[in-house]
Amino acid sequence: MIGLDDRGLTLGDGLFETLLALDGALQAAPEHLARMVQGCAVIGLPPPDPDQALSLMQAAITTAGLQSGRAAVRLTLTAGPGGRGLERPPTPVPRLFATAAPSPLAEGPARLAVSAVRRNAGSPASRLKTLSYLDNVLARRQARAAGADEALMLNGAGEVACASAANLFWLQDGRLHTPALDCGVLAGVTRAKVMAAAGRRGLAVVEAHAGLEALAAAEGLFLTNSLIGVRPVASLDGRPLAAADLVALLRGEVG
Amino acid sequence: MIGLDDRGLTLGDGLFETLLALDGALQAAPEHLARMVQGCAVIGLPPPDPDQALSLMQAAITTAGLQSGRAAVRLTLTAGPGGRGLERPPTPVPRLFATAAPSPLAEGPARLAVSAVRRNAGSPASRLKTLSYLDNVLARRQARAAGADEALMLNGAGEVACASAANLFWLQDGRLHTPALDCGVLAGVTRAKVMAAAGRRGLAVVEAHAGLEALAAAEGLFLTNSLIGVRPVASLDGRPLAAADLVALLRGEVG
Repeated sequence: MIGLDDRGLTLGDGLFETLLALDGALQAAPEHLARMVQGCAVIGLPPPDPDQALSLMQAAITTAGLQSGRAAVRLTLTAGPGGRGLERPPTPVPRLFATAAPSPLAEGPARLAVSAVRRNAGSPASRLKTLSYLDNVLARRQARAAGADEALMLNGAGEVACASAANLFWLQDGRLHTPALDCGVLAGVTRAKVMAAAGRRGLAVVEAHAGLEALAAAEGLFLTNSLIGVRPVASLDGRPLAAADLVALLRGEVG
Repeated sequence: MIGLDDRGLTLGDGLFETLLALDGALQAAPEHLARMVQGCAVIGLPPPDPDQALSLMQAAITTAGLQSGRAAVRLTLTAGPGGRGLERPPTPVPRLFATAAPSPLAEGPARLAVSAVRRNAGSPASRLKTLSYLDNVLARRQARAAGADEALMLNGAGEVACASAANLFWLQDGRLHTPALDCGVLAGVTRAKVMAAAGRRGLAVVEAHAGLEALAAAEGLFLTNSLIGVRPVASLDGRPLAAADLVALLRGEVG
């Protein structure tokens, strides 16, 4: 339980991370913790203690009885208790907690629908996993209402950014493309893994500023996040997309 | 206290209203409740029961011992408990609660600083008071670090939008200007009162799409919200702004 004056609840003032645990073992924990620490620096909060964070996440796995199989572990840091108004107390005392839930692997390739909700590239929050995630909730809701699995989000300038809960990649002209971070995109842990794997294979990676029309000419569109790994995209707004062998190959390499 | 699985806490999935209470009497309660009901329709949540909301707010005033003087009463509606991930349960059960705190009137005119954090006109959330308020927190933080009282926020297209917790007005060429709602602006209760008061005085009101340069030629810049009423602006990024008698007049009329 958390107090009604917690700024995470009242103002979305905080950050989170979602990690995959396989048979109780947290995957890429140092990368996730480093990202939360960096995010705290951006929004001006004291960083979490990594050992405490790891203990909380392991305890959450045990409490949920998820020591075997796939679990999604969420680490949440709020700005802590606060008085009325937007301004934090002079010395914020963040709250850190973790929860765990089963995380079955999504079945089959995803159907995407372009969302009317835009990413706000003009805020640092668009490059962080913050507790102010309503835009993502609304984008996903639109996608589901349109019969799709996930939303494709553009930024205010109409550039392709990401899905509501995943980074986006595509192949074009023999190169791998993914939206640049300043399009308003989270620096995903799996995004970085895919870029490294592509580099090892000698495949050029372009961090792109691209409009929707770029995707019409693309093949091998896929989504990445820590829970789904690499998930191919089958269609965009109902139009089937070309598949690419390389996606299965990257999928085998990064999970 | 609220559960760790509440979507208001985990995803900023919910809405709030801030009302002024004078000697225990809630001001403009029907307008605030109507706005929350409309916001629920936009984000797809069941609306609050107005009688319950009023009871909760009155109880919060009493609990806080604020039956006399000025109080800020906050009504919060969260999307309620939810499992993992962005998608709500099939039948969300929102949580509604209220808190109250003393609300002394801000002293003197405000100093504004232009914030680097932009409003996201490309999301319906930019026109609502949502629990995903981190952009506003960050904008205010920047303004305070710059020695100002409040942030002036532009949208992604560079149009003047609002302050971090107030609507914005200015006088130019004998007309009252305020950013249009589609700039990414809350439909403020006091904003509406000021527009009505201007209309009663035969003063034309322009809902504007204007860049920062428009403010250089303006006089009588002022902020509005339910707690501050009408608050003149003294300076923008350190440059003094021209005052206007009309601001004091509107202030007297709408509070």
